Amino acid sequence: MGRIITFGEILLCLSAPGAARLKQSKILEIDFGGAEANVAVSLAQFEEEVSFVSRLPENDMSAQAKMSLKSFGVDVKPILKGGNRMGLYYYENGAVYRSGKVIYDRDFSSMATIAPGMVDWDKVFEGADWFHWTGISPALSESAYYTTLEALKEAKFRGITISGDYNYRSNLWNWGKGHTEVMPELLQYCDIMSGIHPDVDIVKEGLSDALFEQAGEEMLGQYPNCKMVVFTSRGSVSASHNLWSGALYDGGKVYRSKQYNLTHIVDRVGTGDAFMAGLIYGLRNLKDKQEAVEFATASSALKHFIPGDQNICTIEEVHKLVYEDQRGLISR
Amino acid sequence: MGRIITFGEILLCLSAPGAARLKQSKILEIDFGGAEANVAVSLAQFEEEVSFVSRLPENDMSAQAKMSLKSFGVDVKPILKGGNRMGLYYYENGAVYRSGKVIYDRDFSSMATIAPGMVDWDKVFEGADWFHWTGISPALSESAYYTTLEALKEAKFRGITISGDYNYRSNLWNWGKGHTEVMPELLQYCDIMSGIHPDVDIVKEGLSDALFEQAGEEMLGQYPNCKMVVFTSRGSVSASHNLWSGALYDGGKVYRSKQYNLTHIVDRVGTGDAFMAGLIYGLRNLKDKQEAVEFATASSALKHFIPGDQNICTIEEVHKLVYEDQRGLISR
Amino acid sequence: MGRIITFGEILLCLSAPGAARLKQSKILEIDFGGAEANVAVSLAQFEEEVSFVSRLPENDMSAQAKMSLKSFGVDVKPILKGGNRMGLYYYENGAVYRSGKVIYDRDFSSMATIAPGMVDWDKVFEGADWFHWTGISPALSESAYYTTLEALKEAKFRGITISGDYNYRSNLWNWGKGHTEVMPELLQYCDIMSGIHPDVDIVKEGLSDALFEQAGEEMLGQYPNCKMVVFTSRGSVSASHNLWSGALYDGGKVYRSKQYNLTHIVDRVGTGDAFMAGLIYGLRNLKDKQEAVEFATASSALKHFIPGDQNICTIEEVHKLVYEDQRGLISR
Amino acid sequence: MGRIITFGEILLCLSAPGAARLKQSKILEIDFGGAEANVAVSLAQFEEEVSFVSRLPENDMSAQAKMSLKSFGVDVKPILKGGNRMGLYYYENGAVYRSGKVIYDRDFSSMATIAPGMVDWDKVFEGADWFHWTGISPALSESAYYTTLEALKEAKFRGITISGDYNYRSNLWNWGKGHTEVMPELLQYCDIMSGIHPDVDIVKEGLSDALFEQAGEEMLGQYPNCKMVVFTSRGSVSASHNLWSGALYDGGKVYRSKQYNLTHIVDRVGTGDAFMAGLIYGLRNLKDKQEAVEFATASSALKHFIPGDQNICTIEEVHKLVYEDQRGLISR
Amino acid sequence: MGRIITFGEILLCLSAPGAARLKQSKILEIDFGGAEANVAVSLAQFEEEVSFVSRLPENDMSAQAKMSLKSFGVDVKPILKGGNRMGLYYYENGAVYRSGKVIYDRDFSSMATIAPGMVDWDKVFEGADWFHWTGISPALSESAYYTTLEALKEAKFRGITISGDYNYRSNLWNWGKGHTEVMPELLQYCDIMSGIHPDVDIVKEGLSDALFEQAGEEMLGQYPNCKMVVFTSRGSVSASHNLWSGALYDGGKVYRSKQYNLTHIVDRVGTGDAFMAGLIYGLRNLKDKQEAVEFATASSALKHFIPGDQNICTIEEVHKLVYEDQRGLISR
Amino acid sequence: MGRIITFGEILLCLSAPGAARLKQSKILEIDFGGAEANVAVSLAQFEEEVSFVSRLPENDMSAQAKMSLKSFGVDVKPILKGGNRMGLYYYENGAVYRSGKVIYDRDFSSMATIAPGMVDWDKVFEGADWFHWTGISPALSESAYYTTLEALKEAKFRGITISGDYNYRSNLWNWGKGHTEVMPELLQYCDIMSGIHPDVDIVKEGLSDALFEQAGEEMLGQYPNCKMVVFTSRGSVSASHNLWSGALYDGGKVYRSKQYNLTHIVDRVGTGDAFMAGLIYGLRNLKDKQEAVEFATASSALKHFIPGDQNICTIEEVHKLVYEDQRGLISR
Repeated sequence: MGRIITFGEILLCLSAPGAARLKQSKILEIDFGGAEANVAVSLAQFEEEVSFVSRLPENDMSAQAKMSLKSFGVDVKPILKGGNRMGLYYYENGAVYRSGKVIYDRDFSSMATIAPGMVDWDKVFEGADWFHWTGISPALSESAYYTTLEALKEAKFRGITISGDYNYRSNLWNWGKGHTEVMPELLQYCDIMSGIHPDVDIVKEGLSDALFEQAGEEMLGQYPNCKMVVFTSRGSVSASHNLWSGALYDGGKVYRSKQYNLTHIVDRVGTGDAFMAGLIYGLRNLKDKQEAVEFATASSALKHFIPGDQNICTIEEVHKLVYEDQRGLISR
Repeated sequence: MGRIITFGEILLCLSAPGAARLKQSKILEIDFGGAEANVAVSLAQFEEEVSFVSRLPENDMSAQAKMSLKSFGVDVKPILKGGNRMGLYYYENGAVYRSGKVIYDRDFSSMATIAPGMVDWDKVFEGADWFHWTGISPALSESAYYTTLEALKEAKFRGITISGDYNYRSNLWNWGKGHTEVMPELLQYCDIMSGIHPDVDIVKEGLSDALFEQAGEEMLGQYPNCKMVVFTSRGSVSASHNLWSGALYDGGKVYRSKQYNLTHIVDRVGTGDAFMAGLIYGLRNLKDKQEAVEFATASSALKHFIPGDQNICTIEEVHKLVYEDQRGLISR
Repeated sequence: MGRIITFGEILLCLSAPGAARLKQSKILEIDFGGAEANVAVSLAQFEEEVSFVSRLPENDMSAQAKMSLKSFGVDVKPILKGGNRMGLYYYENGAVYRSGKVIYDRDFSSMATIAPGMVDWDKVFEGADWFHWTGISPALSESAYYTTLEALKEAKFRGITISGDYNYRSNLWNWGKGHTEVMPELLQYCDIMSGIHPDVDIVKEGLSDALFEQAGEEMLGQYPNCKMVVFTSRGSVSASHNLWSGALYDGGKVYRSKQYNLTHIVDRVGTGDAFMAGLIYGLRNLKDKQEAVEFATASSALKHFIPGDQNICTIEEVHKLVYEDQRGLISR
Repeated sequence: MGRIITFGEILLCLSAPGAARLKQSKILEIDFGGAEANVAVSLAQFEEEVSFVSRLPENDMSAQAKMSLKSFGVDVKPILKGGNRMGLYYYENGAVYRSGKVIYDRDFSSMATIAPGMVDWDKVFEGADWFHWTGISPALSESAYYTTLEALKEAKFRGITISGDYNYRSNLWNWGKGHTEVMPELLQYCDIMSGIHPDVDIVKEGLSDALFEQAGEEMLGQYPNCKMVVFTSRGSVSASHNLWSGALYDGGKVYRSKQYNLTHIVDRVGTGDAFMAGLIYGLRNLKDKQEAVEFATASSALKHFIPGDQNICTIEEVHKLVYEDQRGLISR
Repeated sequence: MGRIITFGEILLCLSAPGAARLKQSKILEIDFGGAEANVAVSLAQFEEEVSFVSRLPENDMSAQAKMSLKSFGVDVKPILKGGNRMGLYYYENGAVYRSGKVIYDRDFSSMATIAPGMVDWDKVFEGADWFHWTGISPALSESAYYTTLEALKEAKFRGITISGDYNYRSNLWNWGKGHTEVMPELLQYCDIMSGIHPDVDIVKEGLSDALFEQAGEEMLGQYPNCKMVVFTSRGSVSASHNLWSGALYDGGKVYRSKQYNLTHIVDRVGTGDAFMAGLIYGLRNLKDKQEAVEFATASSALKHFIPGDQNICTIEEVHKLVYEDQRGLISR
Repeated sequence: MGRIITFGEILLCLSAPGAARLKQSKILEIDFGGAEANVAVSLAQFEEEVSFVSRLPENDMSAQAKMSLKSFGVDVKPILKGGNRMGLYYYENGAVYRSGKVIYDRDFSSMATIAPGMVDWDKVFEGADWFHWTGISPALSESAYYTTLEALKEAKFRGITISGDYNYRSNLWNWGKGHTEVMPELLQYCDIMSGIHPDVDIVKEGLSDALFEQAGEEMLGQYPNCKMVVFTSRGSVSASHNLWSGALYDGGKVYRSKQYNLTHIVDRVGTGDAFMAGLIYGLRNLKDKQEAVEFATASSALKHFIPGDQNICTIEEVHKLVYEDQRGLISR
């Protein structure tokens, strides 16, 4: 099997420890996040060969970011050096009625100032057969949007499978155009995409296959190249207690995962990325779409109990949750 | 609107971190607490002008206490310098079946040795229109009791609105008289007071308006100056899981808040003070008593998820909980 | 009453803090564990006179282990000096669907190389009337098995009451013989032993006295010296939420404790040891078997909310949970 | 005496703890720095009334910055709300041969986008009699330069004493003009300024009054409004060991302080700001220039042994170092 | 050889970590100190049998204090339970020109309210042959003074060797009488006492035997029961760099130790107590007075490099410093 | 240029933080060390391609070790999976008169049980032109010795340059043969080796070229294949203050580096490995032997001020120390 390429921004994540608030904390814990980097890290834990394409300035913080990616086994050679600053965000974990909080400080970052022509796509895509991107990259800046478009064209031209995650962030998209103007053009390159979730109250109402079929059909109608639409369904009882399941529609059938009852959430950030990584792994390695969606959902369920942005669980741990033990027995 | 004055003791709070026990912890986290200081801090977060009247020795720990109050925007100029020690308490957080624990070491503190005549009430009450006190101050010592009485008379004389929190602590009141001998005299100065909660098992039984009406009537009958009685209703499933709601009786009607299901409590200390601060803010700024009691209850519900004694949430966060989102969605 | 002797290995426990994973944590917290040391520590908190028999090398880590035991009031004089290394384990706390994890590194430890003849049993058992051992010691090595056998014979010879905990660990027992070959011989010396739990799904099905009677009868039939069989019943909803109760069968009657609903578990390690310590205390000091099993179960329920291997709760705290307050109210 | 105004940028300072490097540290300690904020904080510790003029975005990090300033007693009301980000820097402490390191990330900050007309100088300078600025503000951006110029004109117009610190930072000044083009215009408003230090190797060679006289004369000749030039003399043996002294030339005489032998430096950052604060305090409050320069130098010598950017030592501590004890005896 | 008894107050020591100041630190590290407890701990590390006599309230902090003493092997059975609070002090480590700082909060402690008749001296002194006290106990309160006197009489009556450390603290002695009124009566019971150091500048001038002989003679003349006077000589270059040596005069000869050049001091607190413990050990176990004073001085020199109040170094480590290696080579 | 291969054991290093002792510390900091891994990491920082050959068990701790190496850019693919445990050591940093301390627990480790035939040398040495080993590997066990010999033969056979570091550790070499029996056979394969340092007191006496020439000649005479002998010269004033220099003898001339005055040492561990890495880099990349020895010495001088076993400084930082600044000025 070939190499997987993800493209996007990696951010310095500075979090208040435990239940502390950003306003009161005197130390911040360092982690690194960003949707596409998270997908790359999780795939590397699943023993895929993954390269991450991005742009970073040269200083000790970006050095630590690359060291972190390398430690997880992600190839960082395609990361361009340049620009003046590394994007970052401050993070405060929520608890029950107190919402979690992300404060972005990513304007003017090295990745926001990436431009078409900078990346050597021939070299990046050598040996690759899968490309993953998200709606965050075109939201950063006009030049980042054009570079995303360039990447998609280059991937499509080489016959590489493309997965995309809509990942709408309302506080980005400040460079002139809105997501509804830009995303449709980009999404038409996708083979697999995340779908817009049916608007239901998951905690109170049920979810039916029909809902997903309808939502999926709409997407497939709009994007004829697309073969599959995936959905994650989160029901929020509180910041500490969610319901979580996944679904996949392939134009023919709806594949639904088990629903997980996430009762004492440790860290919600990166769970959508964990799902996408699990799905990509599943579609490439498991025997069918049902197994893939179960793997993706279990993998992202586990991420809720791992601090930090990245899902560092292994194939064995995910399989154990799907097939063996949902009771969290101590392994010794 | 005028300035709010709170009067009482601020304590150094030394807590074992996380779930550690005091017996086993090798470090203690510093915070500052005390019912009236907590009310002052919360009101300052709600953008009220607040001054805190107290007495502290001159050393680095009291300096840090004052720095903390100033950082929250509380005016500390009325704090007297004098006496030999700052009161303190050790705190161990509970979890489920393990009770939380407070070990007081506040005897002979600078505040316990305050005496009538020390405070320049003319200066303190200049521009003030609200005074808040609690039953902890008269419990500290005979001279603290007389100083509390002096404060109440001075406030009443100036036509200032007075709110009082009974706040009975059985391990204080060691100076000779008991609370039943002393408190009635003090409470008669109150316009608003916390009421004695109806004796029901909140987890198993329901709460009715009639119960609050009956309890409130009894108080209003005893204290004819008093215009409102407020109640917080806690149902303890365990140290980590409580039910929480608030009520207000004004002689005519019972106003009840929503009930909150506090499922993964972070820190219970200071939640009653958070309620009083929210109530004072609500009565002064919101459109009616119903809104005030909702604000007070939501504010104190949030405090359960903030570590430390003080409720550092903002007006916007409280309104969001009351009117928008009880699901703790990440804000980004 | 006489002194209690426990015999076994004390291990250095190195845990990732909070919810961190071993793979990602840059610091480890030091604690000391091991079933028999845990029982000794808990009994010392219950004000029993306890001595711990073991073998440790001479270095700063074993020095700290002994300092820890001494701080809890356990007599460490019977600990032999010798061998080359202290056994240890790495520990990662679980959360909900993520299982806790123990990685043992205890091969070739000083305790694994203990041998018959090393311990001066005359001196150890002077003034003793109770001996506690577990199935971990004979699992360590052939010589540790023979030393356990020696201990049991020496205890029996002196008419000392013997309690044993089966404590099967599948990843030990690598020295040649399996537990089914070795344990029956050792168990026949026991007056009290832990029983093999009836195979039911505690979360979904009920537990009946009949089940315990049947399981207990089987054990008593096989080990005629044995007078009592005890059971702990854990129902795992998730790594963070368990149901927990205890039972005792004395050949005549089944004594069952209340069931505890452990909803936000802090640390599960050492809860079985906490039960055995509570039981030994209860049988020696309380008025009947029912009280003993209630004490044992409440004591081990509390342990779930105390970080570290050892149950440092007091008699008063256990009694409070049994007889007064299961709601975890703050004590101040 | 009147109020002191300082004008500049306050930065979030994120430091690797202890001797750790930024590349390897997994946590960062929060502090707040910036030359003019540091001067304000130190002056507030010396019991001066100080206001800080700046511009910050509205978020939790700027909230914490303002809380920090308020805790030290600095008036933050003149801080404008606006712009998109708070400037920050990463800091790694040096040791002996390993240099300390500052990585700035302050481009596009709220302060860099301040512009003339934003500040209400009438209100800011009400009751003020001293204004302090540094060469960092005009280095940030063209609009920050023009705002600095505006501030100087407004101060001069009101007859306020002006002190300026050249504070050249080679990695700023990227907006078009260089410091040699811009600073002379600004410096002509100063009554007191920091001088360009004579170029000598302090560790090996001596310092003579003549050197300072010559350097001072040159400055006074160029800036006829200026009445005093001050100098700090650092001799670097290593990152952990420096020699430190101060000097002042008033056109007539050179005033030199004692030289301090700083042998185990804790934190060098902010020592120049500590000198300026000490000098301003000294000139306003002490009996002559010799005392002022001794106070300034002792104050900044102490700062080398206080972690963080800010000099939180008191008047008493500085006097003790100047007049009593340079041996660091424990005070108890 | 018999048991050693020390008598005095054990304090909770709350220190700001590393170089942080008390005013700015958000956590405090727990340790336990107090001159006589420190001597007891150090002697227990030297494998002496030691009991500590004191009085403590019953709570979790005193429980931790006793656990700490027990962990070091000190017998805590003679500690009385009673009184209302445990004395404490806050500690800030100094660095170079910044002095270390101790803020006592020990008034009204359980030890300050000890009274004659409370201690069962028959039981305490059973098997004892050495008693150590310091001038801190009589400084606490009138009743503590009388209890000290009682202890001395009881020890003398039993023929026990008595060592006393003058340990003058100017901020104690507030109960009515001054140390010059009280100490002479107590010192006459001593066989060994610490002497008043000759008034010389150790850094600049030399120390001669004659100086110690003169100072010692004066003491021996005043206290005819006393057989030896000991001296520690500290020359303070800065808070981080001291010179350190010891001396003993026995009426015939002056015994002087090597002088240690303490260049990067970690923690100065408890170094005098470390000297006394080393001396007591040396006089009891080594071959002559010269060896005793070398052992005492080396032991206390090592204490300067151990954080916390207590000297946890071993006999081997002290001997290594005296006889082998002063170069601090890594032992592996 | 080709790839560099280092061969040896990587250990889990568990250190007491700061100045704390192992006996008293409740947390341990994780790092990874081992002479040959340290050399690999430092070379990777100098942008060499490096692979590390070793053997590790499969668990989370070895996973973290490999993640650490990968983060530094070291190729870990040649690390064999197998054996039962990862070797470790406990570390206590020294200070002045208190020696640092290493407690090894590495017996029976996966690397100690490596055996000839396990490593695929063809694959390992593909593209390699340099091999580095140390005397620690043959000290571990007989089979590790034979595997080292195998490695040397395989390297020699392929014409690869071989550097060896004698690295004698007296507490290893327990498997039967002593180092004097085994090392000569292994050393004859070396092209470059570390020499036995002339026996002089560096602090008091000078070092002359003649001394190194004599010592070097002796080595070159004994090992005719060897072309260069290198020396590091440490003068220990105390654990916190050392003198440090390097030398190289090539049979013709002695090349000596500057001497560094290391006055406030942060961490001494790994400084010899830092020298070897610097030397290998220098000989491969710099213009002559003098530059190589200067680079090696400066690099290892810097390591003394970096916490942890590994020298994470860059080429630029080393060059700066050699050619520009030994005064540790802040870089901003």
